[in-house]
Amino acid sequence: MSDTNSLDALIQALRRLPGVGMKSAQRIAFHLLQHDRPAAQQLSQALAQACAQVRHCQRCYTFTEGEVCATCMDATRDASRLCVVETPADQAAMERTAAFRGLYFVLMGRLSPLDGVGPRDIGVQKLLERAGDGVVQEVILATSFTAEGEATAHAIAEALRRRGMHVTRLARGVPVGSELEYVDLGTIAHALADRR
Amino acid sequence: MSDTNSLDALIQALRRLPGVGMKSAQRIAFHLLQHDRPAAQQLSQALAQACAQVRHCQRCYTFTEGEVCATCMDATRDASRLCVVETPADQAAMERTAAFRGLYFVLMGRLSPLDGVGPRDIGVQKLLERAGDGVVQEVILATSFTAEGEATAHAIAEALRRRGMHVTRLARGVPVGSELEYVDLGTIAHALADRR
Repeated sequence: MSDTNSLDALIQALRRLPGVGMKSAQRIAFHLLQHDRPAAQQLSQALAQACAQVRHCQRCYTFTEGEVCATCMDATRDASRLCVVETPADQAAMERTAAFRGLYFVLMGRLSPLDGVGPRDIGVQKLLERAGDGVVQEVILATSFTAEGEATAHAIAEALRRRGMHVTRLARGVPVGSELEYVDLGTIAHALADRR
Repeated sequence: MSDTNSLDALIQALRRLPGVGMKSAQRIAFHLLQHDRPAAQQLSQALAQACAQVRHCQRCYTFTEGEVCATCMDATRDASRLCVVETPADQAAMERTAAFRGLYFVLMGRLSPLDGVGPRDIGVQKLLERAGDGVVQEVILATSFTAEGEATAHAIAEALRRRGMHVTRLARGVPVGSELEYVDLGTIAHALADRR
C-alpha cells in the first residue's frame, strides 16, 4: 500500500524490538494509531529522551544519567565489597533484599559463545580495573545460575584470582519455602555438597 | 533509582503497548539502550511520523496518509461491490487472494459488548452512509467467524437490509486442503447446511 508509508515504517521499526514479530508489530501499530495515539507520542519522546540521556556509570557500568550512578555516589555503602551482576534488573532484585550494603558492578550481559558474546563484549575488562582499585576486598559473583551465568562467573573468578583478589559466589541450595520432594536433583546435590 | 528517570519513563511508556508487561518492558528497554540505540531512534521517529501522518480514509475508513486511500482512488475497481472487514490486516489478506476486485470498508474493530465496544465505537454509522451512495449494489460481510465477528456481521446485515441493501456473507465451510476427519463438527454441520 503505497499511501501508508508511515504505517509500514512504524511496523518495520516495531519488528526490531526483541520478541516482536510481524503479527505483533501490526497489532501494536494498529492499536496505537486507532486507540492510543497519546501512548505512541509518549513512547516516541521517551525513546528519544532515553537515547540522549542514558549512559553507563563510570564506576559500575550500570545505566545512569550522570557520570557516576547514585549507588556508587552513596558514601554510606561498604566500598570493600563488590557484587557482580548481569543486568540492572538483577541489581534491583539484590537491592530489594536489603541484605547487601556494598557496591555493584553490572556486566550488562553474560558470556554466550554460541551467540558470539565473549569477555570483550561484556564489561569484564572494566570489572578487572574496578576491582583493582585497592579498596575492594571481596568480589561477590551474583551472575545467574544458568550455564551461561556459571561460565561467566567461572571466567571472572579465574581472572580475579590470578590478580590475588578474594572471590566468592552466591550459595547454591534449596530455595526458601521449598518442600524437598519438589526440588530438582541438581539443586539438592549442590545443597548437600555445600552443607554447613 | 533517582538518576535513571529517562530509563524509568521509557519502561513506563513501553508498558502501555498491548501485550507488554513489566518484565518485557524492562527487557526491551535494556536491549535497546545496551545493544540497539539506532533501533530506538528509528522507532521514536516512526512513531512521531505515523502519529502526524496517518489518518482514516474518508471513504473506507482504513489507515491512509491522504484524504482517500489508494484502493478507493483506483478507478479500475468494481465500485458496485463493497467488502466489509474488521482491520487493515484482514483487508490485506483479502487482497492477497486476488479474488476480489471491488472496494472495501474497514470497521477498525468489531462489536464486543463485554469490552464495552458498541456499534458507535466501530465504523457502523460511516458504513451505512458509505453503502448508501447509490453505486454499491452488494455488501459482502467478511468479518471474522468468531462470536464477536458473527455478532458484528449480524448487526450490520440487519441495519443494511432495513435500508433495502443486498447483503451477503463469506461462505462457511470446510477449509481447502482439509481432511474431513480433522475438521470440527460445527464447520462440517455448516458445510452440510450450505451445500451447493
